[in-house]
Amino acid sequence: MTMKKFINDPDNLTTELLEGYCAAFPDRVKLVSEKIVLRAEPKDNSKVALVTLGGAGHEPALSGFVGPGMLDASVVGDIFAAPGPPKVIEALRLHHRDVGVLFVVLNHAGDILSAKAAMQMAEKEGLNVRMLITHEDIAPGADAPAEDRRGLVGCLPLYKVAGAAAEAGKTLDEVYDIANRFNENMATLAVALKPATHPQSGQEIFTLADDEMEIGMGQHGEAGTGHSKMLSADETAEKMFTQLLAAVNAGSDDQILVILNGAGATTQMELFIVFRKLKQLAVEKRINIVHAKVGEYLTVQEMAGFQMFVAKLDDELLQMLKAPSKAPYWVVT
Amino acid sequence: MTMKKFINDPDNLTTELLEGYCAAFPDRVKLVSEKIVLRAEPKDNSKVALVTLGGAGHEPALSGFVGPGMLDASVVGDIFAAPGPPKVIEALRLHHRDVGVLFVVLNHAGDILSAKAAMQMAEKEGLNVRMLITHEDIAPGADAPAEDRRGLVGCLPLYKVAGAAAEAGKTLDEVYDIANRFNENMATLAVALKPATHPQSGQEIFTLADDEMEIGMGQHGEAGTGHSKMLSADETAEKMFTQLLAAVNAGSDDQILVILNGAGATTQMELFIVFRKLKQLAVEKRINIVHAKVGEYLTVQEMAGFQMFVAKLDDELLQMLKAPSKAPYWVVT
Repeated sequence: MTMKKFINDPDNLTTELLEGYCAAFPDRVKLVSEKIVLRAEPKDNSKVALVTLGGAGHEPALSGFVGPGMLDASVVGDIFAAPGPPKVIEALRLHHRDVGVLFVVLNHAGDILSAKAAMQMAEKEGLNVRMLITHEDIAPGADAPAEDRRGLVGCLPLYKVAGAAAEAGKTLDEVYDIANRFNENMATLAVALKPATHPQSGQEIFTLADDEMEIGMGQHGEAGTGHSKMLSADETAEKMFTQLLAAVNAGSDDQILVILNGAGATTQMELFIVFRKLKQLAVEKRINIVHAKVGEYLTVQEMAGFQMFVAKLDDELLQMLKAPSKAPYWVVT
Repeated sequence: MTMKKFINDPDNLTTELLEGYCAAFPDRVKLVSEKIVLRAEPKDNSKVALVTLGGAGHEPALSGFVGPGMLDASVVGDIFAAPGPPKVIEALRLHHRDVGVLFVVLNHAGDILSAKAAMQMAEKEGLNVRMLITHEDIAPGADAPAEDRRGLVGCLPLYKVAGAAAEAGKTLDEVYDIANRFNENMATLAVALKPATHPQSGQEIFTLADDEMEIGMGQHGEAGTGHSKMLSADETAEKMFTQLLAAVNAGSDDQILVILNGAGATTQMELFIVFRKLKQLAVEKRINIVHAKVGEYLTVQEMAGFQMFVAKLDDELLQMLKAPSKAPYWVVT
C-alpha cells in the first residue's frame, strides 16, 4: 500500500522536517549537524544552558521549544527513536560553559540509554552538566517508582520554568532545584482512541477496537492501564482530571497549570470541549487554573487521543512560567 | 458504530467548544449569545470594527483570530454550516459605530446567503457596514469568475491586514480598499488524502482510493480539479506552488506571504517537509518569503491534507502584516 503521507525518501525524514522547521522560523532557530536544533542567536555564556533530546515524529515536539526563555538545544533522533550518544555529546560540547548545562531527558528506555552514555563522555571530558529525568506519567500509579513512570508532555513546561531560571542568571544547582521541584509536582495521563501510522514502515503502531479507548497509553502507544468502552468528553475529562489532581495533591485555593496536548488527529474542537469540563470542575473545587495550553505540542503522527497534564504551582514556579519566551511554540510577551 | 471523538451531546457541540475556547483564552476572548465570539476588551468605538462568520468544526477557525489587531467578532454556525441571519445581524448591531464595520465573508453558498440576508437588515436599520467576500481558491482556474472561487484560508491573513488598518485609525473605505487589494493578490489550493468524519452524523464526508490524492478540494471535501496517484511531498509542493505563484503573478524580487494550513490529520512533520521544498523553490526563483505560517488554522476534523496559500505583498500590505496582534492564533509582538 502507498503510504498516505506527504513525505519524500523515508530515510531522510528527520533532516528534511528539521530543515523545514528551521526555514519556517529563521529568526529563532537553526539546524546544525543535521539533527541539532539551536537558537538562531546563542545565549550569553554566563548563563546556564538547557539541552534536551528526543525522537522525531512528534512534531513540533521538543525542538519547538528552543528559543529565548526556554531551550538552547534539542538533539533529535530518527522517527520514534533516541539520537545516538555522539550527537548528544556534540550538543553538550557546543554548550560547554563554566556555569554549566542542565540536560533534561524524558524517561524512555532509548533516551535514557543514550543520555547516560553521553553523560559518561561529558564527565570524562570535564564538562559541567547535570542531568534531570522527567517521569510524570501516572498510568502505573502516582506512587510507582520514578523509573517506571514515563516522561510525557510535562517536559515542555519544565523547559519553561528551568529556562526562565537560567535567563534570570541562577546557578546550575538553583536551576536544577527549580526544575526538579516542578518535576515533583506534575502529573500526566494519556488517552488514545485510534493508532498512528509509523511514517517509515507504514505500519499502525497499536490497535484498539471500534468502541474502545485506552487511558494511560504511552507516547508511542505503549500499553496503558485501562481499556474501556468509549466515554463522553465530560466523563473522560472528569475521570482523568480527578486522578491528576490527586497525584499532585491539588485542592481548594491551589493554583495549577493545565495542558491538553492533542496526539495528532484529535481535533482542537474536542480539546476545547474537554477543557470546558476541566474549567467547570476546577471552579467547583475552587482550584485556580492560572495558566492553560490547549493544542498540539508533542504528537504521535495521526494518532487520536490526548495527554492531560496538571502541575501544582508555588509563586516562584508561577513567576517562571509567566516570564518572557520566544520559543516558536511557547511565546510569552 | 460509536463515533471515536471526545464529545458529549452532538446537538451542543458548537456552544461547548466555544465555551472551552473562551475559557482557554479568558484574557482575550469571550462568548456571548452562545455563538458569538468577541474580544475580551472591546475596541475603541472610534475605529472601524471587523466582523466575520463561518461554520464550526474547523477549529481553531475564524474565532481563533478575534483579538487586538485582528477581528472584533466571529459569528459561528453549527458544524460545517453558516450561522443564521439573526445571529449575524446581532453581531453587526453590537459593533454599530459611526466609522462603520467591515464584514468579511468567505465565498461559500450558505455563508453568502446568510450574510446577504443580514446585510439587507443592516441597511434597513441604517447600520454602516461594507461586505467583502474572499474567493481565493484557484481550483476552478485562477481566471474563473469570482463567484466560482471558494474562500479558504486566505480570510485569516486578510483579517490581519484589515485589522491592522482598522487599528491604525483608517476609514471604512480605506480599510476596505486595503483588504480588497490583499484579496485580489492572494491564491489558495487545497490537497486532500483522507476524508474527515462529520462529528454529528459520524459519516465520512468524501472518499478517496488508497493510492490517490486530490488537489483542488474545498473546505469540506467538495470536489476538486484533479484526482491523481499519490505524489511525493516535493512533487506535491512544486505542483501546487507553481500554480499559486502564477495565479498571483509573483516572480523574481517579489515578496510573498506563504501559509501551509494543515487539514487536521496531516502532521506538522509533513507540513515542514513541504515547506522545506517551497523555501528551496523560492530561493531558486529569487522570490522572497517575507513571512510564513505553517500549522493548523482552518481545519476539517481529522481530514488529511493541507491548503497552500500565497499572497504577493506590496510594502503597505507587508507593514500591516507585521503590525502587532494578540489574537490567540496569530500573535505578533
